[in-house]
Amino acid sequence: MRFSIPEDHPRASSLKIREMLVDGLRNGLVVEEGLIAHGRGETFDYLIGEKTTSSAFRAINTAAALLLTSCHPIISVNGNFAALCGKELIELSNACGAPIEVNLFYHSMRRERAIKNHLQRLGATDVLGVGRDRSAIVPNLNGERKHIDPRGISAADTVFVPLEDGDRTEALISMGKKVIAVDLNPLSRTSLHATICIVDNVVRVIPILIQKILELKSKNRDSLTNMISEFDNFRNLNESLRLIRLGGPEISETI
Amino acid sequence: MRFSIPEDHPRASSLKIREMLVDGLRNGLVVEEGLIAHGRGETFDYLIGEKTTSSAFRAINTAAALLLTSCHPIISVNGNFAALCGKELIELSNACGAPIEVNLFYHSMRRERAIKNHLQRLGATDVLGVGRDRSAIVPNLNGERKHIDPRGISAADTVFVPLEDGDRTEALISMGKKVIAVDLNPLSRTSLHATICIVDNVVRVIPILIQKILELKSKNRDSLTNMISEFDNFRNLNESLRLIRLGGPEISETI
Repeated sequence: MRFSIPEDHPRASSLKIREMLVDGLRNGLVVEEGLIAHGRGETFDYLIGEKTTSSAFRAINTAAALLLTSCHPIISVNGNFAALCGKELIELSNACGAPIEVNLFYHSMRRERAIKNHLQRLGATDVLGVGRDRSAIVPNLNGERKHIDPRGISAADTVFVPLEDGDRTEALISMGKKVIAVDLNPLSRTSLHATICIVDNVVRVIPILIQKILELKSKNRDSLTNMISEFDNFRNLNESLRLIRLGGPEISETI
Repeated sequence: MRFSIPEDHPRASSLKIREMLVDGLRNGLVVEEGLIAHGRGETFDYLIGEKTTSSAFRAINTAAALLLTSCHPIISVNGNFAALCGKELIELSNACGAPIEVNLFYHSMRRERAIKNHLQRLGATDVLGVGRDRSAIVPNLNGERKHIDPRGISAADTVFVPLEDGDRTEALISMGKKVIAVDLNPLSRTSLHATICIVDNVVRVIPILIQKILELKSKNRDSLTNMISEFDNFRNLNESLRLIRLGGPEISETI
């Protein structure tokens, strides 16, 4: 760590997690703007109490069922996700048979290469969406994220997009795909447009999701399909929203 | 700008403001962790509707009165504040006669020097709290922020601390000082412990505060003192908190 964070600082653990992203920046995985985006998430996490809520657990269970029943699921990876959950996302990929594709809002050849190398060092066998592999297009989407891999997101029926930007979610849904998002903001366009939005911190979500996939693997397809059809994304988001609005006590002088 | 942000991106203006901080990072004013802290603020700003609320206006008015009636007010500056409001904070300093002192959580000699140079280029005549000038101490505070200037924060009766960290506010209050904070999180320790907390984006606050100081300069001391005594920080924070909790509509499929 470059700076000494006082051990008695009330938010020392959160400050230390930030260092993972700062390391990611220094290793070329993360861009500066990604640090700001992480900060946005930190606040929502703080507001939901920095724990996986009952509505998040419900969304994770349904996401596990959807990943298991999809023909071509794929995991979309950006710099922050690679820096925070590199090892875990490879485990997730193995657990549900979904390949990994790099997709960057702030794109550069150097950064997509750094992310691919980082994931391969951690054990990923193949990483899609890098270099010439970005030859397909998401219609009606501007910016670098429209370039996708014909073997990956382009061919997928379900796209797992943690730490996502809303207009891509809308564009993927318009392509007829199902989208599983992880987003701490229950009011974001990503949350509202996703098939399933998990309102939780991605660092907590992935281990739980892997565990759930392993549990549900023995279930038959019909019971998984039932789980999915019973899930209502809007109802679930409203539950998350109520937790934020009613979560705290009135401020008084007795602090 | 290093990356092309699509002009039709729904949050293009917010993404462009982020670039000011990224520039600050590249110029050595800001640290990576400061970008994350900015992101935290962004979320609270989004939740209050990205505008100055009535409770924030009330706090700004009271802050103007307190700055005008203080014997030795001072403005504490960190890297983010310098990057976002460099020019405006010098105007504020001139308007209320409060000197500027650098105080950094993530401290380095190089960074405090970069901030001093940046402010001097923008017209600041003196910048305290740099190098050997940090010879006084805030009792009961760990970390680099405890080192203060004997001519500045140490001698001040009122400290203006935008973008502040909570435990320093507590320590300054324990020293018998009054603290004016700007913090978008109405539940933070800074907000709860400050004499006056302005729950608003510092970029919007400073121009309004300068304007208010110029307006109130002609008032007599008694009427300013009355304004201050009528302000209740907890009542005001609760108002800000209610705006966050009740601000949004229920999510429905009619988005």
